[in-house]
Formats: sequence, C-alpha cells, structure tokens
Amino acid sequence: MSDSLETPLSKVKRGPNRASYDKELALEIIDAALMCHVGQTKNGQVFVTPTCHWREGDYFYWHAHSKARNVKGPIDEPEKVCINVSLLDGLVLARSAMHHSVNYRSVTLFGVPELVEEKEEKVRQFELFLDKVSPGRWETLRPVSDIEIKATGVVRIKIEEASVKFRGEPPIDDPEDYNWPVWAGVIPLERSWGEAQTDPQQNENYPAANTPDAF
Amino acid sequence: MSDSLETPLSKVKRGPNRASYDKELALEIIDAALMCHVGQTKNGQVFVTPTCHWREGDYFYWHAHSKARNVKGPIDEPEKVCINVSLLDGLVLARSAMHHSVNYRSVTLFGVPELVEEKEEKVRQFELFLDKVSPGRWETLRPVSDIEIKATGVVRIKIEEASVKFRGEPPIDDPEDYNWPVWAGVIPLERSWGEAQTDPQQNENYPAANTPDAF
Repeated sequence: MSDSLETPLSKVKRGPNRASYDKELALEIIDAALMCHVGQTKNGQVFVTPTCHWREGDYFYWHAHSKARNVKGPIDEPEKVCINVSLLDGLVLARSAMHHSVNYRSVTLFGVPELVEEKEEKVRQFELFLDKVSPGRWETLRPVSDIEIKATGVVRIKIEEASVKFRGEPPIDDPEDYNWPVWAGVIPLERSWGEAQTDPQQNENYPAANTPDAF
Repeated sequence: MSDSLETPLSKVKRGPNRASYDKELALEIIDAALMCHVGQTKNGQVFVTPTCHWREGDYFYWHAHSKARNVKGPIDEPEKVCINVSLLDGLVLARSAMHHSVNYRSVTLFGVPELVEEKEEKVRQFELFLDKVSPGRWETLRPVSDIEIKATGVVRIKIEEASVKFRGEPPIDDPEDYNWPVWAGVIPLERSWGEAQTDPQQNENYPAANTPDAF
C-alpha cells in the first residue's frame, strides 16, 4: 500500500466503493492521460479549462501562455484549484437502463498552483513534457529561445490531496434481471495513434516522431 | 452562419483565432463526445466532475444520483456552472518545442442547471440518453421502475452561452525553422469500439449491443 491522498476535501462522497486514495494508482492514471481539466474561479465564476499535463515525482505540471487564465489566476489570488484527469475505457451495458455505466479511470486533484519561475527549471520541465508527448524528440528540435521561455508559464501542484475513482468490470444487474433476454456486457473503447501525417510544408524525408504511451 | 453563443462570459480571451461561437458547430462537438467535465463550487471550493452527457435540441443534459454533488448543488444555491466537452484529435509536432500543440475540438458552456422533475419527462430523457449510448437498446431493456426514476437526478442547461475552440491543422512553425532537420506533422488519435465482451454471467446468446457514434 503506497501513501494515501485522502483528506476531508478529497474524500469521495458518492460511490465510495469505487474510490481509492492510493498514490501509486493515482500516478499511474495521471501518466496514462495526456489531458486534464483544470477548474478554478475568477470573480466567483467557475471555469473549466482542458489542457495537457505532465508529472515529475510528486508534482503535477501544466503550462499555458504566461497570461492565460489558468496560469495568471493563481498569482492574483491563491486558490485551491481542482483538476480532473479522466480516461473513458468502455461502455457498460446492463439489462436495465439504471445499471448502465462506463468503465473509466479518473483522478481528482486539489492544490494551490505554484508558478515555476527559474529559467533552467522551466526548460527542464519543457523537456520532460516533450518527452511524455514524443519520447526522444526534445534533442532533435530547434533549441528554445529566451523569449519562448518567458512567454510560457509553467505551474505545478503537489500531488498530496486527491482521489481516484475507477470502474473496470462487467455490468452489475439486479439479481432478478439476469435472465432478461438482452445482451449485456462491456464494449471497450480503444485508442491508438494513427498514421503520421507529414507536414505538407516539409520537403526532406525524416523518420516520423515517436508516439507516446499516454492518450 | 447559425446562432451565436457569444456573451461577455463565454468570450475567449486567449487564442481567439481558434475560437468560434457558432451554435451548429458547438452542437456537433457536444454530440460527438460521450463525456464532459462539470465545474461548480461548494462553499467556495471548485470541483470538477467528469460525467456523461446528452443533448436534445437547445438543451444539454446530464444525470447523477439525486444526491450527488453535481445534481444537488444547483438546488442549494443557483450557480452558473461551467461545463467543458473536449475531444483530443491528435498530436501536433513542430520543429521547435514552443509550437508543439494538439489538434482538438472543445466546447465550454455556461448555465444555471435546471432540475428535470416531471416523471414522464425524466423517462423520456433516459431514453434519449440510452439512444445516444447504444441506439435501439432502450426498447430491449427491463423497463425502469418508479424507485429508479426517483433515484436518478436529471439536470440540464440551455445551450445559449458558450464558446468553441478547435485546432485541426499541421504545425505552424516560425518561418526560419521550416528547414530544421526533423520530422514535423500530425499524429492522429484514433478511437474505435473494440470487440464486445459478453457479461460472464450471461448464459443465452444474444446479438451484442449497437455502438454509438460518439466517443
């Protein structure tokens, strides 16, 4: 059993039988997904912003234009944001409408974003991000410029207050419904990387980039 | 040009060149996705909850246990929630780290949730939901019971305040980088429904359920 991420805030109120606070499991789901949804408020109004994330150790990172809402916000007014990372894994088709569900993996994180400001550290984080998106690609790219480093905000939260919810099993019907004459089961959602589409503006032939393990 | 969903709140501040307020486009993206992320606050803390959604006409629907956070909340204190629907379509791999991106379709909606309370209307909405998840399945299921109808909350917002953001093109590099010796282009993310996994507790053979057009 690894560290627990349970706190009064991260404790799951609904469907606690599908909840976990196991840190290793949370990290695994975070790494398996490319995108997350960041929730925060501005003048009392909630906003949800989809963005790509990466992780190093116990920290969850995302980036945006230095002036974007989900980077600038935390400087204006420290707020505990809520971030959800979800992967839909399949449809769960039961014998009654009520017991239909989906199989999924989901992590909900809470934390006050910290801005990463030190230049070398920002560049190191860009490299880790690129490495997640396309392993080995960083070294082959035109190096980053000072202007680009300044223009890109990097923020992180420590992964210490979170919950995991997951479902990965056949439908669970009411006992008296198992003989209802209809197919029941799971239809898995499959993800894969398709054929690389070379930029039409590219004249030379180079081997296509590596694809990530995350989706 | 269809109706515009632009309001001061839904107006996109960052990357307005990728923004649209076209209602038809928003509806198309909403229908293409099975899952959304609902953002709302409770006692000043923001929460982001992934859930499945469906649509009828100008209304965006979701459901949850009658006592769940994203159904009960709106009754306690009317709040304009923010809902994001996103589909990741591919990796955009440029010649510099800075111009890496993703292709995606995304809709951000705002609205005060209304609870659907009338029994027949709730059942009609369950049917529309099932029809999205597995066309034609509703009629084959064990009919819903009164207890199930009571236990399932249905909420909706009118689709009238929203923005669309999308990207669906090759990388756009700085002009001087186009000869940098590295592959650049798009790697599309492909989704498909895998082989149906029959419930191990099923003894009879029935044809597997239909799969949805949404992912």
